Amino acid sequence: MIDASALRDLEDILPGRVSTSAADLTSYSRDQGPVLEPALPVAVVRAGSVADVQEVLRWATRHRVPVISRGAGSGVSGGAHATTGSVILSLELMTRILEINPDDETAVVEPGVVNAALNDAVAGHGLMYAPDPASYRWSTIGGNVATNAGGLRCAKYGVTRDSVLALDVVLADGTLVRTGHRTFKGVAGYDLTALMTGSEGTLGVIVGITVRLRYLPTSVHTVAAFFEDFTSAAAGVLAIGRARVQPAILELLDGNTLEALDGAHGSDLRRRGGSLLLARTDGYGAAAEAEQIRAVLLGLGARVSDEGSEEADRLIDLRRHSRGDEVDDLYRVGEDVAVPKSQLVGYVAALEAMASRHQVQLKVVAHAGDGNLHPTFWVERREGPQAQERLESALDESVRCALDLGGTITGEHGVGQYKRRWLAWEQAPKILALQAEIKRVFDPLDILNPGKAIVS
Amino acid sequence: MIDASALRDLEDILPGRVSTSAADLTSYSRDQGPVLEPALPVAVVRAGSVADVQEVLRWATRHRVPVISRGAGSGVSGGAHATTGSVILSLELMTRILEINPDDETAVVEPGVVNAALNDAVAGHGLMYAPDPASYRWSTIGGNVATNAGGLRCAKYGVTRDSVLALDVVLADGTLVRTGHRTFKGVAGYDLTALMTGSEGTLGVIVGITVRLRYLPTSVHTVAAFFEDFTSAAAGVLAIGRARVQPAILELLDGNTLEALDGAHGSDLRRRGGSLLLARTDGYGAAAEAEQIRAVLLGLGARVSDEGSEEADRLIDLRRHSRGDEVDDLYRVGEDVAVPKSQLVGYVAALEAMASRHQVQLKVVAHAGDGNLHPTFWVERREGPQAQERLESALDESVRCALDLGGTITGEHGVGQYKRRWLAWEQAPKILALQAEIKRVFDPLDILNPGKAIVS
Repeated sequence: MIDASALRDLEDILPGRVSTSAADLTSYSRDQGPVLEPALPVAVVRAGSVADVQEVLRWATRHRVPVISRGAGSGVSGGAHATTGSVILSLELMTRILEINPDDETAVVEPGVVNAALNDAVAGHGLMYAPDPASYRWSTIGGNVATNAGGLRCAKYGVTRDSVLALDVVLADGTLVRTGHRTFKGVAGYDLTALMTGSEGTLGVIVGITVRLRYLPTSVHTVAAFFEDFTSAAAGVLAIGRARVQPAILELLDGNTLEALDGAHGSDLRRRGGSLLLARTDGYGAAAEAEQIRAVLLGLGARVSDEGSEEADRLIDLRRHSRGDEVDDLYRVGEDVAVPKSQLVGYVAALEAMASRHQVQLKVVAHAGDGNLHPTFWVERREGPQAQERLESALDESVRCALDLGGTITGEHGVGQYKRRWLAWEQAPKILALQAEIKRVFDPLDILNPGKAIVS
Repeated sequence: MIDASALRDLEDILPGRVSTSAADLTSYSRDQGPVLEPALPVAVVRAGSVADVQEVLRWATRHRVPVISRGAGSGVSGGAHATTGSVILSLELMTRILEINPDDETAVVEPGVVNAALNDAVAGHGLMYAPDPASYRWSTIGGNVATNAGGLRCAKYGVTRDSVLALDVVLADGTLVRTGHRTFKGVAGYDLTALMTGSEGTLGVIVGITVRLRYLPTSVHTVAAFFEDFTSAAAGVLAIGRARVQPAILELLDGNTLEALDGAHGSDLRRRGGSLLLARTDGYGAAAEAEQIRAVLLGLGARVSDEGSEEADRLIDLRRHSRGDEVDDLYRVGEDVAVPKSQLVGYVAALEAMASRHQVQLKVVAHAGDGNLHPTFWVERREGPQAQERLESALDESVRCALDLGGTITGEHGVGQYKRRWLAWEQAPKILALQAEIKRVFDPLDILNPGKAIVS
């Protein structure tokens, strides 16, 4: 446990940046993921510069204090949850966009830059930062990189890793290094940029990000299709794939999600169908692609929105916020499995059977173009521990089933703290051991977000 | 040095798979990169199965023998060059396509599958394997992954890493592991798949590859534009970017390359311009995108091919083979630098000045959409060592200049053996040290392609 003199040392090094107020310790003690082991940090440091981050890590190395770095705390796997004796290193004040290079089609940002802020800043140049997690209006690019965040547009544009060219990283001992390159292509040495992306603060603290930007599409078309049930909508996803049309966004919402949206927004979606499939195409071929998708879905008997319908666009926005500001807890858990696309229909049917068998509530949204599903399971809080057990059983079974179908325990949210119990279900002991050894290379004292992301 | 009994041991373990014939030792002693230190291996093993590869590595671990794995030997950085006392592990017989999953849009292949063979196999499903190095008709997917190969289509579809989902890898001690996932998205643990991709056989031997396939475009348009000189053609690249049109292929050829093509194919390209810019668009928007590109280039005064011209398509094929089967040596070296796109014009001018100053010949082709250039410098063999020195000076200067402009020493060919001397120019000592430590995690005895890819 950290002693008082070490803490005074930290306050001396970074005057005005360290808080030990009860309010801060509480509000920085967790992200939006379920908390398995509630704990408060001993301090919160709000770094204002790379030098601040280096000072924190030099101090942490001297005193052997665990450091948990975070951006907006919008993660949903507990990757930023505090552990006993830890210091939270918040990067939320590092919000400068350092460079926008319209001809290079790149930008360089500090980690605390909010995803949407970068998009606002580059739109005037006809550019966009493609990765768009549902939290894009408040999550930070540093956090997006630390978790290799996905989003809606990755169906066409790839995940965060595919847009990251170079990283400035402060290592455990305070050394600042740069990985990667400013060019689109580059294969000098091992791909440390990709290794760092998605490592959830366990290998270093990301303090600068060079991203590749994409062309802001001039034309965007959206198709909304209501289906009788979820299974037939999932079949629609496969049919679009078989037509070899690549949507930018392809989202699937089940009946319970429609009901929840109706409750929150006063819409009447559930009345219109048991499931909704939303497809957005963009770019020079957008109109033709949307037409093709409409034809495919009409052929399956769906009720498809008219060409150019404003409602379809509005539904995409609703979908972006379908998670709302729900914070998961032990009575309500959102999952993030992914399965090969051909398994979507079967997996969705299995989920529904599981929910019924374990007597838990279920709603599902899916980034269907990627086979990435977010089932949310919940039980009534008043039902107590027994209901919690049923919830746990349903969660375990849903994860096991995804793995059996060739899937993964996490498509885009990360392992964090919450999903570590499932990691060994997916990865062989030797793979787990290699990761633990890589962690030791970067962080021999195990002070960087210990107990997260990997199993050692 | 390996002793005779160890070699007999290998022959006993893998009867019929081991060759020590002088012809084999010679022909497997190098790839197409320049040879700095000529050496013959002590044996060549042609593995027929994963089990064979495991046996070779168990044997190599027992006897501490360096193992250099290779596919077709089409690399151009010396990554597969033999070193003294080494065994060459050829994977060219492992040519099975194990799975094609049209609905999942994935395939699983053995490492010896030739790039074009996979494309032939999946085209009937309306799919393609996007990465297309110029060597696609003979290079293997295993080799493509080991070098994170680029190609022409990466302007739109990304490099090899962006198409690799999972890898089966035999580790130094013979253990078989699987990295990654069969799904498009997946963030469980560290990205070992990306770490392995481009590691040039120094971290493990890739024996199985799960790739993501893309939709074979139904519509393809090609624009050929002749410019007065290379600098104005490079400006055309920037102008296409500023129009925010994304070509699938964007290739730039200088006058000397046109002359070389004329010599090889009897064409009259050089007479028609001092530089040629080739743009291909594909997909539902291909026609509109090509029209936009034509308008932009006409506006710059280029002589642009007619819409639908067959010649433009033929020129793309010519470009694919512009490297021909030239094998680099100490009198002729092809480079592979990349620079940020805004630096293309200036870099091209600097290259021409350098060639003139050092009295060396120069021709340049570029994957211009990615800022990835392949300048080839050469001198006349009969001029002897002094000319070689001039060549070396020009090469060094061209690399230094690319780095000064924010570029990299290798965009897609890899460091191999030949470019190690430049790696420390690009990467800081701490980055080099981290890579050496990662290498030790995977290969504590340093038997996997030692002396390649990284600097330890």
